[in-house]
Amino acid sequence: MKIVFIGAGNLATNLSKALYRAGHEILQVYSRTAESAQMMADLFECSATVSLDDVRTDADMYIFSVKDSVLEQLACTLAARIKDRLFVHTAGSMQMDILPVERRGVLYPMQSFSKTKEVNFREIPVFIEANKNDDLAVLRQLSESISDRVYEMSSDDRKYLHLSAVFCCNFANHCYDLGARVLESHGIPFDVMLPLIDETARKVHTLHPHDAQTGPAVRWDENVMAKQIELLEDERMKQIYRMMSEGIHGMRN
Amino acid sequence: MKIVFIGAGNLATNLSKALYRAGHEILQVYSRTAESAQMMADLFECSATVSLDDVRTDADMYIFSVKDSVLEQLACTLAARIKDRLFVHTAGSMQMDILPVERRGVLYPMQSFSKTKEVNFREIPVFIEANKNDDLAVLRQLSESISDRVYEMSSDDRKYLHLSAVFCCNFANHCYDLGARVLESHGIPFDVMLPLIDETARKVHTLHPHDAQTGPAVRWDENVMAKQIELLEDERMKQIYRMMSEGIHGMRN
Repeated sequence: MKIVFIGAGNLATNLSKALYRAGHEILQVYSRTAESAQMMADLFECSATVSLDDVRTDADMYIFSVKDSVLEQLACTLAARIKDRLFVHTAGSMQMDILPVERRGVLYPMQSFSKTKEVNFREIPVFIEANKNDDLAVLRQLSESISDRVYEMSSDDRKYLHLSAVFCCNFANHCYDLGARVLESHGIPFDVMLPLIDETARKVHTLHPHDAQTGPAVRWDENVMAKQIELLEDERMKQIYRMMSEGIHGMRN
Repeated sequence: MKIVFIGAGNLATNLSKALYRAGHEILQVYSRTAESAQMMADLFECSATVSLDDVRTDADMYIFSVKDSVLEQLACTLAARIKDRLFVHTAGSMQMDILPVERRGVLYPMQSFSKTKEVNFREIPVFIEANKNDDLAVLRQLSESISDRVYEMSSDDRKYLHLSAVFCCNFANHCYDLGARVLESHGIPFDVMLPLIDETARKVHTLHPHDAQTGPAVRWDENVMAKQIELLEDERMKQIYRMMSEGIHGMRN
């Protein structure tokens, strides 16, 4: 497949690398910022552009991996010039139908990407959707060339998937960050916490998180909770502590 | 070492098993409930009791692994009858000095235990403290017989360690539980989330959680956040979503 990437962020960088390794051709990279476009294009020795007018019209597929707020606008501008090509976006939280073309689809790799940390794409669940059956088959083949976990999922269900990911990944990581802040303000290195973090993640492979829950809030040990809230100096951290504890306790009643 | 366990919960069960395997002798198990005491005692073919009066006086060490709120009372009652033995508790959030004996210490294995899921104790960080140098040496030797990560830590620092663990483990797990609830209410199996959960935990081995943070709250994508809050039916989940997002964003300014 000959592919043009619209966007050069973390997801675009990781996805394009995986596709390139699987033998697909990255024709061009568009990004609003010249530096990002060039940096990603350099990986594939292809052309980079910051101008939508210069986006090539001869690719098989256009993968939009941009901020949700600009997706529709970008797709609309390109659709005026590029006809009968498959437009695909990678956004977990956006409907497929935001793409204003007949041949449209979604390829959502559900993972938390960073540019510097390599991930094994084969283990990443990829959720696909397309407006036409032929394009769905194309997306399936493409996705299976990079991942062993390809699922078809509608835009409606995908919204909830993405919402769940915000809790399981973004919010869980924020908990790590708050924990790190507590340790560091008392000169204790964060890495003493890694075995516990790993086990907490490992545990939910075999136990439902509801059954895996431990801590003072499960027992509603008010003595411990009150003392811990007192140790926190930051007002927002106190509030988060209270609300999470009430959440843990509330789900048990 | 000849050890009596006061308490037969998740931590006591896992710790006593590890000590037993390392060649120590579990002399007796006390628990408020006969069933728990017997179940744990059966593992070591030792005696079980629900009466403090029947606790043997000839052990080298008494390990208290009980609810924080009853620890002091239990230790006090036993201290009246058992003289010049090492009393140790396993509670991350309690001061060592709550134990009303001269020979006192703490052995805090920082991990989230469940009775059914086996953990590799060698990887668990164990934090120790003792009132007397001789007893600290005893505790160090005992701890090193079951774990490769033994650290000495004062009661004051341990409070913050435990507080951090509540964020990194208990609250992170609650995030998983909330994510599972979102998926399950739309017929999507929770296990699609496991690769993301694993990667989120793996990431903080090489990146500080602050730098590993991703998601709509980092970009402060109000459009996505408003839509996601709308998808949540539960009022508390909406509040948690808002507060965690503000926390993520607030730590960036």
